[in-house]
Amino acid sequence: MLETRPCFPDRMPSRVIIEGVEPEIDGGRFPIKRTVGEEVVVHADIYADSHDVLAAVLRYRHADEETWKEAPMAPRINDRWEARFSVTALGAYEYTLQAWVDRFASWRRDLSKKVEAGQDVAGELLEGAELVTQAAKRGRAEDGEWLRWWADSLSKGDDLTARLKAALDPVLSTVMTRHADRGSGMAYERTLRVTVDQERARFGAWYELFPRSAADEPGRHGTFKDVEKRLPYVRDMGFDVLYLTPIHPIGLSFRKGPNNTLNAGPNDPGSPWGIGAAEGGHTAIHPQLGTLDDFDHLLTTAREHDLEIALDIAFQCSPDHPWVREHPEWFRHRPDGTIKYAENPPKKYQDIYPLDFECADWQGLWRALLDVMLFWCERGVRIFRVDNPHTKSFRFWEWLIAELQKRYPDTLFLSEAFTRPKVMRYLAKSGFSQSYTYFTWRNNKHELIEYFTELTQTQVREYMRPNLFANTPDILPEYLQYGGRAAFYIRFVLAATLGASYGIYGPPFETFEHQAVKQGSEEYIDSEKYQVRRWDWDRPNVFREFIARVNAIRRENPALHANDRLIFYPTDNEQILFYGKSTPDLSNVILVVVNLDPHHTQSGWVRVPLHEMGLRADEPFQVHDLLTEARYLWNDESNFVRLDPHANVAHIFRLRKRVRTEKDFDYFF
Amino acid sequence: MLETRPCFPDRMPSRVIIEGVEPEIDGGRFPIKRTVGEEVVVHADIYADSHDVLAAVLRYRHADEETWKEAPMAPRINDRWEARFSVTALGAYEYTLQAWVDRFASWRRDLSKKVEAGQDVAGELLEGAELVTQAAKRGRAEDGEWLRWWADSLSKGDDLTARLKAALDPVLSTVMTRHADRGSGMAYERTLRVTVDQERARFGAWYELFPRSAADEPGRHGTFKDVEKRLPYVRDMGFDVLYLTPIHPIGLSFRKGPNNTLNAGPNDPGSPWGIGAAEGGHTAIHPQLGTLDDFDHLLTTAREHDLEIALDIAFQCSPDHPWVREHPEWFRHRPDGTIKYAENPPKKYQDIYPLDFECADWQGLWRALLDVMLFWCERGVRIFRVDNPHTKSFRFWEWLIAELQKRYPDTLFLSEAFTRPKVMRYLAKSGFSQSYTYFTWRNNKHELIEYFTELTQTQVREYMRPNLFANTPDILPEYLQYGGRAAFYIRFVLAATLGASYGIYGPPFETFEHQAVKQGSEEYIDSEKYQVRRWDWDRPNVFREFIARVNAIRRENPALHANDRLIFYPTDNEQILFYGKSTPDLSNVILVVVNLDPHHTQSGWVRVPLHEMGLRADEPFQVHDLLTEARYLWNDESNFVRLDPHANVAHIFRLRKRVRTEKDFDYFF
Repeated sequence: MLETRPCFPDRMPSRVIIEGVEPEIDGGRFPIKRTVGEEVVVHADIYADSHDVLAAVLRYRHADEETWKEAPMAPRINDRWEARFSVTALGAYEYTLQAWVDRFASWRRDLSKKVEAGQDVAGELLEGAELVTQAAKRGRAEDGEWLRWWADSLSKGDDLTARLKAALDPVLSTVMTRHADRGSGMAYERTLRVTVDQERARFGAWYELFPRSAADEPGRHGTFKDVEKRLPYVRDMGFDVLYLTPIHPIGLSFRKGPNNTLNAGPNDPGSPWGIGAAEGGHTAIHPQLGTLDDFDHLLTTAREHDLEIALDIAFQCSPDHPWVREHPEWFRHRPDGTIKYAENPPKKYQDIYPLDFECADWQGLWRALLDVMLFWCERGVRIFRVDNPHTKSFRFWEWLIAELQKRYPDTLFLSEAFTRPKVMRYLAKSGFSQSYTYFTWRNNKHELIEYFTELTQTQVREYMRPNLFANTPDILPEYLQYGGRAAFYIRFVLAATLGASYGIYGPPFETFEHQAVKQGSEEYIDSEKYQVRRWDWDRPNVFREFIARVNAIRRENPALHANDRLIFYPTDNEQILFYGKSTPDLSNVILVVVNLDPHHTQSGWVRVPLHEMGLRADEPFQVHDLLTEARYLWNDESNFVRLDPHANVAHIFRLRKRVRTEKDFDYFF
Repeated sequence: MLETRPCFPDRMPSRVIIEGVEPEIDGGRFPIKRTVGEEVVVHADIYADSHDVLAAVLRYRHADEETWKEAPMAPRINDRWEARFSVTALGAYEYTLQAWVDRFASWRRDLSKKVEAGQDVAGELLEGAELVTQAAKRGRAEDGEWLRWWADSLSKGDDLTARLKAALDPVLSTVMTRHADRGSGMAYERTLRVTVDQERARFGAWYELFPRSAADEPGRHGTFKDVEKRLPYVRDMGFDVLYLTPIHPIGLSFRKGPNNTLNAGPNDPGSPWGIGAAEGGHTAIHPQLGTLDDFDHLLTTAREHDLEIALDIAFQCSPDHPWVREHPEWFRHRPDGTIKYAENPPKKYQDIYPLDFECADWQGLWRALLDVMLFWCERGVRIFRVDNPHTKSFRFWEWLIAELQKRYPDTLFLSEAFTRPKVMRYLAKSGFSQSYTYFTWRNNKHELIEYFTELTQTQVREYMRPNLFANTPDILPEYLQYGGRAAFYIRFVLAATLGASYGIYGPPFETFEHQAVKQGSEEYIDSEKYQVRRWDWDRPNVFREFIARVNAIRRENPALHANDRLIFYPTDNEQILFYGKSTPDLSNVILVVVNLDPHHTQSGWVRVPLHEMGLRADEPFQVHDLLTEARYLWNDESNFVRLDPHANVAHIFRLRKRVRTEKDFDYFF
C-alpha cells in the first residue's frame, strides 16, 4: 500500500514517559546548587499507556565517581513521582532517572484481584513462573538459583493454595524488583548536575570593611596590621566573613578626589576600584596597606578569629595598570589608537579602562584573569565578591568559575550585579554562588513578600542564593537616610532573618551614618571610596550588642540557616510583617514579627498557622522572644502584638511546644 | 601559574543570551499547533552584558522550503522581545531566533547623547565611518558602493554639522541594519516546529451517529444509504462533521447482547467496537451497512451537504478478526498458547483481543495499522476519531500520525482518551489534532472556570485543542440524567460557545434521552452500542431549531472560532457563568451569560470589563442577544440579568458599540 517504506525508529520506543523533571534548570543547561550535607529532592511525571504497574529509580553520583547509586522513586499523586539523595562532598554531582514497566508487579496486582474475585488462576500462576524464570536468567548466580526454585513453587504441585502463597510472597516481590527487566524501559535523556559548595555558600553573616580606614589614630592610612586589630571587633559582633574592598595599587591618572570630585589632590588616596599602578595590578598589594606577607598573616589571624576573608574582584584597569602597557590588545581602541575609557554617555569615567572580553586575544586575556584568581586561591582566599559582573561577558564567568572550582571546589563567588532581573538570574545560573539582590530597595510589606516569595518559593531558589546587604559603599538607601536609628534596627533584623546570608557595610552601618552626599542620592557623604575615614572603634554601642545578639540567634537556630522554608503569614496591619522559618522536622521553628514603621508604634493581630507547625488548634504553646528573653503563652491562631520602634522593632520568637501538662506547671521544649 | 592549560570553548562564545522562548513545548521536543492562516507570536528573553543595543530576528520557514524568512523582533518590557509570523500552508513550519550586538546602533545612540551634551565628537565620527566601511565590505555590490560613500561623508570634510547629519541619517541606519555583523551573535540552539492543520482542527461542530440506527422503519438495520437520507437532518442543524461509529464487520465470539449482557441472541448486532469477522477486519465494511462503493458514495454526498465524514479508529480485534489467524504474533499469549483477551481484573472482555504494540514483529504490526489508515485516506477520509489511544503505546501514535501527515497533511485525529490529565496532554503533544476533555463532568462555575482557564490560558493551548462533547455513547452525564430538558440546553450552549470545536452524540441528545441503564451509571439504557434503535427523524423538535440557531451564530461570529481569547468575567451569583470571546481586533465581541441551574430562575449582576472591549466607562453600548434578537442598551460596567431555565437558559450577546450619537437616534455597528 505504501509507495515508500515508512521510517521506523531505530529500536522499539519505550512505552514509558519521563517528563516534568524538577529541579531542572533550562533543560539541564545549568546545574542546581546545594551545600555539603543538603538533600536534592527530585520529582518527575512518570507514566505509560494502559494500566501496568511502573517502577522508577533516581540515579546519582559524584562526578568523580564511576558507578551510579540508585534511590527507588515513589509515586505521589497524579503521576508525580519522588525520590531524594544527599550530597556529601564538594564539587559536582549528577543525577538522572530510569523507569520501566514492572511486569511482575503488574501480574501480582492482577493475580490478587482475580483471587479475590474467586477466579481460576492456574494459567496466571504459570505466567508468573515464566516471569520468575526470566528474572532468574538475569539474576546473579545465587539469586538465579533461588528464583528458579521459586518458579517451581509457583508452577508445580497440586496444592494451589501453597502455590498462590508462594506467588504473593513479599520476599519474592523484593527479589524480583532487584532483577527487573529494564530492557524496554526509559532512561531520561538528560543527565542533570548539582554544584555542591561549602556551607558558607548558604549561611553566613558578612561584614564589609575598607582597610584604609582601619587605623586607630586620625589621618593615618590603615594597614593590614590595623585590620588585624579590628578582628575582635568584627568577631564579637558574630560575623562569619570579613569582606575587604580592593587591596591593589590605585591608579594616579584621573584619580578621583573626596566625594567623587574630578581632580584629586596629592594626598587623596583615590578609589580602590581604580586598580593598577606602577607597583602592579591585580596580584599586587597597595603599598600603603602593607605587603603580601602582611596579607598572608591577616588571612591566618582572621581564621583564628573564625573569620573568613573575602576579596573584591574588579576586572577593570586604571590607565596606570601594567596591562595597559604590556597588553594594549586587551583593551578597546579609538581610530587614533588611544585606549577607550569607560563611559555611559554623556558621563565619562576616564580613570577606568574596561577590558575587552571579545578582543582577538580573548584566550590570553581570559587566562590572565584566571591566573589572577588562582594567585589568590593559592594564598588561601576562598571567597570572592565580584564587582559588576554584568558588564563582562556572561560566558566568561561561566568558564572562569568552572575552571576555578575544578581546582578549588571550595571557592565561593558573590555576584555584585545590581541590574535587570533576568541578567541577575543568568549570572547566578552561570555559576555565581551567591547574588546581591533588590532587598536594599524592598521596604514595604507587599514588596518584601512578593520579592522573597520569588527568591525562595520558585525555581529561582535552585540556583540563586541571595546575600542581603542592608547597605553598601554605593547604596545608602533612602529608608536609612530618613528613618532614624530604628530604621537601622529594622533593616538589620530583616536582612539577618529573611536571608540565611546577609551583610552590612560597616562601621557606617552600626554607627547609623545616614547622610547622603546630596538630596536624592544614595551615595554616602565623605565616602570611604574616595578618602580615609576614622572610626571610633572602642566607643560602646548598644546597636553592636544587638547585632551580636541576632548573629548568636542565627547560629543557634538551624531554621535560620536556609531560605527555602521561609513562609509569610497574615497580619491585619500593613506595617507589621510576620514570617517563619523552620527545619524540615519542625524541631526548630522561628517566627519573626517586624514593625516596618521606624516612626510609630504599631500593633495588630498575627495569625500563627498552627497545623503547619504540628500544633493542634486547642493546644496552648509558648513563644520565646530570643531578643528579649520574654516568653508568651499563646492559646490560639490569632495573637496580639505591639512593637514600639524606639524600644523593640521586632520579635524573634522560637516556638516551644508544650510537651505535657501537669497540675501546677508546664514543660516546654 | 596553571599546571594544565585551561579548557577553552572552541570559539569565543557570544555575549548574547536567548532564553525563555515561547511557545516551546518541552524544550522543542514537540511541535505547537496552528491552522492555516493563524499567527505564531514568539517571545523570548534576549539580553547581553553591558549596555549595548541589541538586534534580533525571528527566522521561520515551511519545512519544505530551503530558505528562511525573517521578522525583526521588537523589545517589549524587562528584556522580553516579540515577533510574529503567519502560517499559510498545511504541514510543518520551523522557527528559530538570532540575536546580536548592534554596534552601529549602539554607536549612534551614544553619539546622540554626546552631541546633546555638547561634547566633541570628531573621534566618534571616525569610529562610525569605520563601522560603515566594515559593513560596506559585507554588503552586496550596490549597497557596498553606497556605504563607502556614506563612510566618506562621516569622516571627511570640514563641515562637522553636515558630517553629523550624515551620521544620524535614518536611511543609513536602515541600510546598516541590513548589513549588520552577526558574526559574534547568538543563534538559538533549537529549531522549533509548528504543525499546521486545516481549519477544521480548530473550529467545527460534530454530530456522532450510529449508522445501524439510521433506518426509517422500525426493526431494520440501518445502511449507508439510510445515512445519506439523514444528511439533511444533520446539515439543517448546522453541523460540520458527521462522525460514524465503527463501520467494520463485527465479531461473533463472545458478542455482547442488549445492555451489555454477556450472551447475545442470534439477531443481536453486537458492539461495533468488536472489530473483525469472517468478512474482514479494519479495511472491510460491515455487510449490513452496505459496500465500499456505498461508503464512497456517502462520502461524496456528505461533502455535497457541507458535511465531512469522520471515521472511528479502534485498534483492537474481535477473536474473529482475520489478523488473529494470519498474525497471531501481533497478540499477547498465555503460557498455554492461547491469545489473551482484554481485562481489567476482575473484569474480563473476552470479545476483545488487544494488539501487542511491543511484540517481536512490532514493525510489521505498526505498518499494518498505518496501512489501515492509508486505506481510508485514499478513499478520501480525512478525519479520524481514535478510540482509547491511551491503551496503546504513545510513541506508536506519534509515529503513525507523523507518517500519515507526511502523505496527507490535511488529516485530523481526535483523541478519545478519558484518563489522567498528563496522559491526555501527552497524547495531544504526540500529534493528536484534537482531544476529548473533562468538560462532560465540569458542571459548576468554579470547575468550569478552573478547567477552561487551564485549557485556554496556559501553555496547554499551544498543543491541545479541546473538542467538547456534551454526551457520548459511553457517557450520559448525571447532569443530563437529572436536570430535565433545561440541562440539555445549558450543556449545549456551554459546549458550543466555550469550545470552538464541540460535539453531541445524537439523536439521544436532541431528543433528551436521559435514562441510564441503572442508578449510578453513565451508560444509556438500551444503548445503540448493543442494539439497533429507531429514531423518529421527522418529528418536529424545538431543540433542533435551537441547535441550528446556535450553530448559525457560531458560523457568523469569528470570535467563536477560537479558544485562546476566552475570558471569564465576574458575576455575583454562583449559578450564573459569564464569559467572553473576541477577535484580536475587537471587531467581533461575543458575551455569553449562562444560568447553570436547570431548575430555577437565577438573576444577578454581571460585570462587563469595558476597557478590555475598547469602551469608555461613560459610553453606553448595546448588547444584542443573538438567540432571541432582543437588544439591550447598557450604560455601565455592572448590569442585571435574569434567566429562567424553562424559557431562556442563556444570552449569547454580540457587543455593538455606539458609533456616533445624533439628536434623536443612535447608530450601532
